[in-house]
Amino acid sequence: MDKDIEQLAVDTIRTLSIDAVQKANSGHPGAPMGMADMAVVLWSRFLRVDPKNPTWENRDRFVLSAGHASMLLYSLLHLSGFPITIEDIKQFRQWGSVTAGHPELDLPLGIELTTGPLGQGFATGVGMAIAETHLNDRFGNELIDHHTYGFVSDGDLMEGVASEAASLAGHLELGKLIYLYDDNGITLVGPTHWTFSEDPGKRFAAYGWHTLTVDGHDREAVAEAISEGLNESSRPTLISCKTHIGYGSPSKQDTAAAHGSPLGAEEIELVKQGMGWEHDPFHVPGEVYTFFTKALDDRRQEASEWERVLEMRLSSDTDLAAAWRKHFDPAPIALAVPEYDEGAKVATRAMSGAVINAFSDERPDVIGGSADLASSNNTLIKSSGNFSATDRSARNIRYGVREHAMGAIVNGITVHGGLRAYGGTFLTFADYMRGAVRLGALMGVPSIWVFTHDSIFLGEDGPTHQSVEHVSSLRAIPGLWVVRPGSAAEVAGAWELALNRTDGPTALILTRQGVPIGDPGPAPVDKGAYIAREGSDAVVVATGSELGTALGAADILAAEGKSVRVVSMPCVEAFRLQDATYQAEVLGRDLPRASVEAGVTYGWGDIIGSDGLAIGIDRYGASAPAGVLADEFGFTPEKIADKLRPLFG
Amino acid sequence: MDKDIEQLAVDTIRTLSIDAVQKANSGHPGAPMGMADMAVVLWSRFLRVDPKNPTWENRDRFVLSAGHASMLLYSLLHLSGFPITIEDIKQFRQWGSVTAGHPELDLPLGIELTTGPLGQGFATGVGMAIAETHLNDRFGNELIDHHTYGFVSDGDLMEGVASEAASLAGHLELGKLIYLYDDNGITLVGPTHWTFSEDPGKRFAAYGWHTLTVDGHDREAVAEAISEGLNESSRPTLISCKTHIGYGSPSKQDTAAAHGSPLGAEEIELVKQGMGWEHDPFHVPGEVYTFFTKALDDRRQEASEWERVLEMRLSSDTDLAAAWRKHFDPAPIALAVPEYDEGAKVATRAMSGAVINAFSDERPDVIGGSADLASSNNTLIKSSGNFSATDRSARNIRYGVREHAMGAIVNGITVHGGLRAYGGTFLTFADYMRGAVRLGALMGVPSIWVFTHDSIFLGEDGPTHQSVEHVSSLRAIPGLWVVRPGSAAEVAGAWELALNRTDGPTALILTRQGVPIGDPGPAPVDKGAYIAREGSDAVVVATGSELGTALGAADILAAEGKSVRVVSMPCVEAFRLQDATYQAEVLGRDLPRASVEAGVTYGWGDIIGSDGLAIGIDRYGASAPAGVLADEFGFTPEKIADKLRPLFG
Repeated sequence: MDKDIEQLAVDTIRTLSIDAVQKANSGHPGAPMGMADMAVVLWSRFLRVDPKNPTWENRDRFVLSAGHASMLLYSLLHLSGFPITIEDIKQFRQWGSVTAGHPELDLPLGIELTTGPLGQGFATGVGMAIAETHLNDRFGNELIDHHTYGFVSDGDLMEGVASEAASLAGHLELGKLIYLYDDNGITLVGPTHWTFSEDPGKRFAAYGWHTLTVDGHDREAVAEAISEGLNESSRPTLISCKTHIGYGSPSKQDTAAAHGSPLGAEEIELVKQGMGWEHDPFHVPGEVYTFFTKALDDRRQEASEWERVLEMRLSSDTDLAAAWRKHFDPAPIALAVPEYDEGAKVATRAMSGAVINAFSDERPDVIGGSADLASSNNTLIKSSGNFSATDRSARNIRYGVREHAMGAIVNGITVHGGLRAYGGTFLTFADYMRGAVRLGALMGVPSIWVFTHDSIFLGEDGPTHQSVEHVSSLRAIPGLWVVRPGSAAEVAGAWELALNRTDGPTALILTRQGVPIGDPGPAPVDKGAYIAREGSDAVVVATGSELGTALGAADILAAEGKSVRVVSMPCVEAFRLQDATYQAEVLGRDLPRASVEAGVTYGWGDIIGSDGLAIGIDRYGASAPAGVLADEFGFTPEKIADKLRPLFG
Repeated sequence: MDKDIEQLAVDTIRTLSIDAVQKANSGHPGAPMGMADMAVVLWSRFLRVDPKNPTWENRDRFVLSAGHASMLLYSLLHLSGFPITIEDIKQFRQWGSVTAGHPELDLPLGIELTTGPLGQGFATGVGMAIAETHLNDRFGNELIDHHTYGFVSDGDLMEGVASEAASLAGHLELGKLIYLYDDNGITLVGPTHWTFSEDPGKRFAAYGWHTLTVDGHDREAVAEAISEGLNESSRPTLISCKTHIGYGSPSKQDTAAAHGSPLGAEEIELVKQGMGWEHDPFHVPGEVYTFFTKALDDRRQEASEWERVLEMRLSSDTDLAAAWRKHFDPAPIALAVPEYDEGAKVATRAMSGAVINAFSDERPDVIGGSADLASSNNTLIKSSGNFSATDRSARNIRYGVREHAMGAIVNGITVHGGLRAYGGTFLTFADYMRGAVRLGALMGVPSIWVFTHDSIFLGEDGPTHQSVEHVSSLRAIPGLWVVRPGSAAEVAGAWELALNRTDGPTALILTRQGVPIGDPGPAPVDKGAYIAREGSDAVVVATGSELGTALGAADILAAEGKSVRVVSMPCVEAFRLQDATYQAEVLGRDLPRASVEAGVTYGWGDIIGSDGLAIGIDRYGASAPAGVLADEFGFTPEKIADKLRPLFG
């Protein structure tokens, strides 16, 4: 190994990073400077990626969990030959540039994941490693056999989502997960020891991890530690790399001043003097490009060879070809409405369970799970066992009581490619995983959330477990589609919508209690809303379990000669995308409007107007049987009819 | 110690618990049965509470973090003489009963905390222990010197919020925190080892905890372990108690079947036979009441003696009396508007920092902090240092990168009594702590959240860090008041509102970037909205940084002869509580309406109607300087004026 050229590569990353932050007058120079040694070792000697084929299915995944060190990643991608140019780097943090303040998922550029909110990258990488083990089991070492690497920071280790994921990763024996911890002793406000005096190595050992400690600037030591991680097959590896934040900055190294602000022109000059760097800003020595090109050469060849093998195997094995396509390019799906006896009342979570088990054979890429509530969330794929260290083929993942990690892991499994993951919990615990739900929506990853026990009708467990505001608050997240079906047909439509979405996540909002099964025909959930019952005097918009209640109220009012149109609106987001004509047709042009939903009324004014009648629950629930709550909170057909009567003057 | 009577007390708790769950036909019998031994030891031998004086300031705090074991707590409270009756227990989980499915904060009843969402109790208890150290330092051992005990479950230990809090508790050396871990090996769906194979003892040792393991049914061993915890002054104590869930149930002990469903009449009969219990359901032997009365006698005397000492000291020391009152019964406050040079632009986070430092002397009970962003959130109380293991007097808490734990700890400090806590982070990370924010709102605890960097105008850090939906989604939480001030007067009013609220939390939403300082006079933030500029042709409702933008747009339109009323609406929740007359006065009766807020428009229809013009940002932001973003997203006065023009036909 030619030390000089490797050092030159390290220096190039450091200078590119500080130059870009300086030009942007904004950003985080210290972490890229501190991690540059680790980065050059990993990327030049180990990381199996092909810049010419960035979506190579069997590439190693690299997660920069410390997303604020984004210039480290952009430098690496540029030097390695991914399509990030020096011009892009000069446009760091500027409008329209691909070099955003924090990395944003963009596979063609080589960015595997959006990171920045601490802990998310750590936990999402665990999902990628899970995906690898499952696909490895399915397709064999020849086609899927890769590692997931990550650079994580003290902030990542402090976040609960990472702790949850670390515990699960140890339990699941994800031996192909290798994280390098940038132990630089500095957080945004000051020394890490101000808030962090635990022993992370011991903690991770307690989780069942393989732990190592090295000098993060001793590249041979880093390389040896990574090799040890590669030799470890059953424990995930955490390599604590002792580094200096702002390495080489005479007045800012090892201080918080290097963390989140430009070094300043004068200090940059001193840094460059210190490394003997006599070039204009943004200079890259030609031999550094050559170094990375040569370094990655064997992996480019490996990728080409892999493509050849894949093609050969798929063309000679039609079953394998079909399976591969079902995983990596699944066709859109149409789902049948589950059948029940006429007049039955069935919980939409149970309908959802039936739908899952109806499509699970046709969609082998779908992998389920729940945060210790599988039996309540009806998330089990019954034809399969439970994923574990000894059964990588199983399609049910037990996340334990770890909602936030589940959120990130579901994103990670899905963004890995080859699999679509869903995860279940009670709707009220959507709050615990909201950071992950948002990040999935921001990335446009089509994760699927199965949120059951969706209102006060959860019953006796009481207000801690009864969502009232969650449906509303999830609707506020851009890109997330919130679907609250109210019949068997709508449940099938909801899953169809979720599975056929490719550009963002879907939250399915399901009841604990039984609801009328509704009409047997398919429901146009993809349009967001439709007329469930015609009527000419007023329109009532209902969702989920309140669809049946609203229809019942309409029956009562019909007996009084009042004609109520009931609009079912399982998905507000889809409805808003319809054209104005359809929207007006459904809602009626001059009818008095009401909404009925067993949750906060917040947001319904957007649909029914500030003078519309929003029937909801603008307070927390109470602990009591569901039937009593329906009566006390006024969600029986009779009481809804009472509330609607004033609409008719 | 009379073993027979202690066993009888344990049996009484077990039978009361299973009888109540059976009658309710809903609930969790297994955990109370398993923890009954630990509970009787702690409550009869150690816990310093006085049932006749449940709000005794110096009582030990007891946190049942495993809130699903609520019948354990209700049984203990009943037997100890708190005002929970057998009739209440018979009404377990019924409408209007105090014995809800999960415990709900009710100090007169002896319920210190609402629990149920796992991990929250664990982390909130850490806040109680922090409060104790600070008040102990302030008022001395004679007045404040107590322990915080908790019963925690495997689910608690799996939750990230507990991991964060545990790491911080170890760092802060909270030696008066003693948690008993009910290590029963069973979760809702099955054996804990399905998902949890870490070594919690080693993990907590890595956090700096004092860890012990005992047989949770060996009462002498439990007592000895608690004594060891009491003797440990600098490390928090975790006592792993190996227990049997559903203890004494011949067919359900040690299985998930005992976790979340009634045992059934037949099984209950077998349990009672096994313990030789020949009584009607809900029977309490008289000697068990006597046992608890006698057991608690010394603590009742201690409470009386304490009251005597307090009275004596307060009457003899007027400074102390004033300080005590300022902590335990603070007067409402009026805050001056911070002064700036005319025409200045100042970030509302900076105004907030000025306000904090203006009231911090008058309100010594207020204790601040931030999750590694104090310098960015402007949360520092400058006259004080940083709270630590060696400085308990300081009023700034460094939470590290642990938002969720901060949320629960702020709730815990505040619900402890004697202190009001606030906690700061970027608004986008409100998602990470939402579980705690909700629980604080549900409990009605007046925690204060300082959420800064409140929109896309955060700038270069990009969409991961730019809130767009958070203001809207926080407004959906019942009981939480969301205040987004747009001038110096509104910032002062926002803090005044937050500090004077006693029945619920307040979220202050503050800018990173400068905004016009606005009119110097006080602003009626407590009314939620007011007319900031008169106008007769249209009304524009604006919040926060968009107040200045809307006023600028009104100026532009005024030059064209169009008269725009600008309504500032810093707090939607407060506005909704005003009478209809005031609301109509402010919004105008027949004016076309618009809203301007740099976030999702979701929810604005409630104010301006579905035909109102909601100007917002219904997508994620982008990484660029704030000024560029204002232009690109159309949030300059000129572009807002352009959008408003169609209102005038």
